[in-house]
Amino acid sequence: MTFSLTILGSNSAIPSLTRNPSAHLLNVNERLFLIDCAEGTQLQIRKFHVHFQRIERIFISHLHGDHFFGLIGLLNSLHLLGRKEELHLYGPPLLKDILDLQLEASKTVLNYPLFFQPLSSPGYELIYGNEKVSVFSFPLTHSVPTWGFIFREKEHLRKIRKEITEKMKIPFSYLLKLKMGEDYTDPSGKVYRNEELTADPPSPKSFAYCSDTLYDEKIIPYIHDCDLLYHEATFMQDMLQSAKDKMHSTAMEAAWMAKKAHVKKLLIGHFSARYDDLQPLLDEAQSVFPGTILAEDGMSINI
Amino acid sequence: MTFSLTILGSNSAIPSLTRNPSAHLLNVNERLFLIDCAEGTQLQIRKFHVHFQRIERIFISHLHGDHFFGLIGLLNSLHLLGRKEELHLYGPPLLKDILDLQLEASKTVLNYPLFFQPLSSPGYELIYGNEKVSVFSFPLTHSVPTWGFIFREKEHLRKIRKEITEKMKIPFSYLLKLKMGEDYTDPSGKVYRNEELTADPPSPKSFAYCSDTLYDEKIIPYIHDCDLLYHEATFMQDMLQSAKDKMHSTAMEAAWMAKKAHVKKLLIGHFSARYDDLQPLLDEAQSVFPGTILAEDGMSINI
Repeated sequence: MTFSLTILGSNSAIPSLTRNPSAHLLNVNERLFLIDCAEGTQLQIRKFHVHFQRIERIFISHLHGDHFFGLIGLLNSLHLLGRKEELHLYGPPLLKDILDLQLEASKTVLNYPLFFQPLSSPGYELIYGNEKVSVFSFPLTHSVPTWGFIFREKEHLRKIRKEITEKMKIPFSYLLKLKMGEDYTDPSGKVYRNEELTADPPSPKSFAYCSDTLYDEKIIPYIHDCDLLYHEATFMQDMLQSAKDKMHSTAMEAAWMAKKAHVKKLLIGHFSARYDDLQPLLDEAQSVFPGTILAEDGMSINI
Repeated sequence: MTFSLTILGSNSAIPSLTRNPSAHLLNVNERLFLIDCAEGTQLQIRKFHVHFQRIERIFISHLHGDHFFGLIGLLNSLHLLGRKEELHLYGPPLLKDILDLQLEASKTVLNYPLFFQPLSSPGYELIYGNEKVSVFSFPLTHSVPTWGFIFREKEHLRKIRKEITEKMKIPFSYLLKLKMGEDYTDPSGKVYRNEELTADPPSPKSFAYCSDTLYDEKIIPYIHDCDLLYHEATFMQDMLQSAKDKMHSTAMEAAWMAKKAHVKKLLIGHFSARYDDLQPLLDEAQSVFPGTILAEDGMSINI
């Protein structure tokens, strides 16, 4: 099943001509989840050839402009382009008021149902689940209420070993039970253990999104062992004090978080506009956590 | 004196990768006025190398997203980049609430004074004036309250004919009086008529901005004889009914307006995303009003 992330914006607050501010698109089995939506995100979506009517859910981490100023424009364009399908939105409670006021001002009644679920939990909370994935929110430590998200694939079904089941002529109606781990009893009463007939499925993957935040180890239990951790890295370590003052993290801190949480890969982003060349941020993070990669607008990662 | 217009966005509602929605920058004697501010305007400003801290006043015609969704991002970036100078904003009353709510949500207190003047007049009204220019608003006919603007240079002072005044040794202290049209009496009591000592100044220029609107001749008295008329031309005449339904104008209607109002030049813009090739819109308008030009992102016009 597809489980991939596309970076739509890797910059922090101020948009530049080379890097847009935060927006990320997660493809979970061809259902698209948008995570944050800075100004210009709808153009990034076009630029990178995403079919944006397929976006099903939008998650907004917090109400700083570089994470949501593009949302109202995207919602409006979906409306103008004839969307009819439901759209689900998760974000801080005030987001609803901000959108409603702008829709009211333009006398716009959206053509599609928009369901809003406010984030409010001070702990780890399931905010969405379907047959393939569960999404949890957890609080980050920033200057306004901010949430991180973790997207966890559900356990896959066991894989049928066709070469055996076909030879044994196990009835089709039994296969789902095998996938779910049951043993098989043949017409003569002989029992075959599930392990003989199926193979282990791939292990479920997970993606954690942490932007914006101070370095704070309280989140480790939530993101522990995840396959890909996105952690903001607004500054380098020589600007640690600036990072703390602005309640952001450094590349080195992001790497420490990845290491302490035993994640498999680290993706750093939300770079300050002061950095034209990002290689020093990558070097700094890799010195602590070698499995670090740099976010780059348009880049896709199979998780 | 400089009196020029730069197009920052020539498209209607939906942003495309080739044309941004509405935003226009008027340079009046090196003081910059921004007229409408669609999503992505701050990037257009960068792309076309405008020093955006020099923007002094912003005029928002109405609260459809393609005319103001970029405003909050621009205000926020000006703040983050350290602006201290006053900024003056003119727009429909609800605009203030929309901005305030978003600033409150992000706990942002702008570093610079932002003065907001609500548009409300049902007629022709002076909304700003300095020693060089007067700005008037007037109502347009659209699906939400919408205002047009006209920027009128003030009468220039008369031009001193130096070759004469220097020869006559007219004292420096007298020159301003000459510029203002007074006659000159020399020490012997002889009177020289002003016309002998000065030349006519260039006639004051004017720029009228009309977007979005149904074709409505009620605005003719406000824009009559202006040097440059920007009039929206969302559709071509074969889509007149769509234009009417959506309370927009066609290229041909914009040209009729230009002709009936005896303007010197017509600039059409706010094109529907359906038109990749704009030549047919230009041809249609020029068939009625030959002095028509097409808005194009990045283009500048000396008025």
